[in-house]
Amino acid sequence: MKIVVLGGDGFCGWPTALRLIKSGHRVEIIDNMSRRDIDEELGSNSLTEIAALNTRVDTANQILGWHGRLSYQAFDITKEITRLQNVLYNFKPDAIVHFAEQRAAPYSMISDKHRRYTVDNNIVGTSNVLSSIVEVDPSIHLVHLGTMGVYGYSKDFGAIPEGYLDMKVNSTGQDVSVLYPTNPGSIYHMTKSLDQLLFQFYNKNWGLRITDLHQGIVWGTQTEETSMHEKLGNRFDYDGIYGTVLNRFITQAATEHPLTVYGTGGQRRAFIHISDTAECVKLAIENPHEDTSRVRIFNQVAEVRGVLELANILKEKYGAEVKLYDNPRKELPENELEVSNEGLRSLGFEPITLSDSLIEDCKFIADQFGDRLKRENVMSSPKW
Amino acid sequence: MKIVVLGGDGFCGWPTALRLIKSGHRVEIIDNMSRRDIDEELGSNSLTEIAALNTRVDTANQILGWHGRLSYQAFDITKEITRLQNVLYNFKPDAIVHFAEQRAAPYSMISDKHRRYTVDNNIVGTSNVLSSIVEVDPSIHLVHLGTMGVYGYSKDFGAIPEGYLDMKVNSTGQDVSVLYPTNPGSIYHMTKSLDQLLFQFYNKNWGLRITDLHQGIVWGTQTEETSMHEKLGNRFDYDGIYGTVLNRFITQAATEHPLTVYGTGGQRRAFIHISDTAECVKLAIENPHEDTSRVRIFNQVAEVRGVLELANILKEKYGAEVKLYDNPRKELPENELEVSNEGLRSLGFEPITLSDSLIEDCKFIADQFGDRLKRENVMSSPKW
Repeated sequence: MKIVVLGGDGFCGWPTALRLIKSGHRVEIIDNMSRRDIDEELGSNSLTEIAALNTRVDTANQILGWHGRLSYQAFDITKEITRLQNVLYNFKPDAIVHFAEQRAAPYSMISDKHRRYTVDNNIVGTSNVLSSIVEVDPSIHLVHLGTMGVYGYSKDFGAIPEGYLDMKVNSTGQDVSVLYPTNPGSIYHMTKSLDQLLFQFYNKNWGLRITDLHQGIVWGTQTEETSMHEKLGNRFDYDGIYGTVLNRFITQAATEHPLTVYGTGGQRRAFIHISDTAECVKLAIENPHEDTSRVRIFNQVAEVRGVLELANILKEKYGAEVKLYDNPRKELPENELEVSNEGLRSLGFEPITLSDSLIEDCKFIADQFGDRLKRENVMSSPKW
Repeated sequence: MKIVVLGGDGFCGWPTALRLIKSGHRVEIIDNMSRRDIDEELGSNSLTEIAALNTRVDTANQILGWHGRLSYQAFDITKEITRLQNVLYNFKPDAIVHFAEQRAAPYSMISDKHRRYTVDNNIVGTSNVLSSIVEVDPSIHLVHLGTMGVYGYSKDFGAIPEGYLDMKVNSTGQDVSVLYPTNPGSIYHMTKSLDQLLFQFYNKNWGLRITDLHQGIVWGTQTEETSMHEKLGNRFDYDGIYGTVLNRFITQAATEHPLTVYGTGGQRRAFIHISDTAECVKLAIENPHEDTSRVRIFNQVAEVRGVLELANILKEKYGAEVKLYDNPRKELPENELEVSNEGLRSLGFEPITLSDSLIEDCKFIADQFGDRLKRENVMSSPKW
């Protein structure tokens, strides 16, 4: 198949692009390099060294013998609509994977500018992609990275289904299946809720084939493919803004910093390994749904864990110190969470679980960090 | 009170600004003149002559003795964020009325460019306003013009409540009150659904006081205030893109064109007179809600009528010919509709009904149109 990967230079996009070409697909990456620019803005960095995108692409094509399967163009899909549509006209993709969104909740909450940027970038980007699909070729399958965070953590709604909730309307007694009532916890999560309504309408009016993958919190750093050559290595964020909770714990454990548990650590969250992100996107692309009467929504998660529970695993197995900090976020101090992931399992997804490789990841990071770790960034986070 | 009216040069914005200053408030209009530009783009026009905004403002201030109560700035809130925030810092409004959205469903469905423009303009605008309120003064009351069209017309959900629907979750048996599951019928309506989620999050995280007025289809042209001087006159759209159904029927009746009923005319819709739009916004501003635990949503409607029923009223009372046309829109051919408007009624809203002034409006339009009517525009509409 031919696949466009929007945001293919990023933490999830790059390993996914490699997984797709390794599986025999042809991939064109579009990326505006915004994640690298934000490193400059924040004075942050990836703990692992990452090659420039052209080097990454050359390495994949030449050294590893995947010649011509991977190409890229560096531009901004929110600004260069003609160029985006030209890619669709010329490359003629079967599918588009859409990772081209600002993806850090803390970043979206830093200031007025960051709130507005996150909405502008994410919503205008998604709108441009959808309208371009209608314009150029409505048969293109759009696979989008959503987030478990659109659901929120209310216990009123029970176990989290895959996108749609069965309810009864009090006034009519009618049973209905509706888009799960959204309750995002940050501007970033809110943009994914807005995306859902864009998908719903484009699907309803033009019959677009859309898969929305509500992903849990990603952890880990390398995949089979990114480990094949040093120039293919993936980024690894450990700071308080882009580092996800488990990756921050791994870094903290590996560098003998106390693990920073926010609040009581009673927040339960869904997790997935970076290698499974790539695998699930591949499964969604290789198994497009026939019935396009509504948007296909999968929960892209491996398992549910409590934040303090994770910290305690690292304490026991790796000797890490655990420390409770005031929570900078507005969120429930504790919550239950039960999540269905039947959709992706039915396509063959067999999740990597924490017990499988958590300690190996700690050791990998401990070996890697050298002088790249900026200790002052470990605790950076805006308060909201 | 001091009130900023975003989009204060438009069909709803201008009469509302006048109503507010007549009621003793101080008003600053911000408008980017986009509606006048779109007239140029479409080769369309207002059937009534409208003065330039500076003339309108001068007339209101000088000739009518409302000196200094009305001012304006012409700029685009999606582009000039510093200027927007300077208005909030300097003018220090108690409330902002947000009419600054592209408001025609058919326009939003013309082409790729129009789809994207409508999302960019409406969502970036709303996001900028909300983020600026947080930045400058979180106590500012935001009053937004939503649309009845966010609800859709499913009979599963029964009579349409004001924004929130009481339901029971099947899996837990829990009774919940959730934002009404949205089912917009065009890109334009979809943007108002997205707005709702922006309001929900800004209210939840920063406690902003927000009123969302889900307005029915507006009809009529002048209000008490716009009729006070010819330079204060309001615009009147009769074309297939910006003209709303009843105003188009009025024009068609007055110009002896057959009334253009789409499909069977069995669509039932909620209507409101332009004078009541101004009145309801005034009521919402003068009666801010104390309980900001959620967004206050009112249905801003006077009465529900069927499209063919409206045509037949004009046939009987004015001798108009009625003609059925293939429906260019994707919508249910017929629907039931029952709408609560208790919220605004509780604040004193006494609706103007169709029987009160429909025929007067026909006569007014028949006297006005002279050589301004472009007959080729009466039937213009994109198909979707």
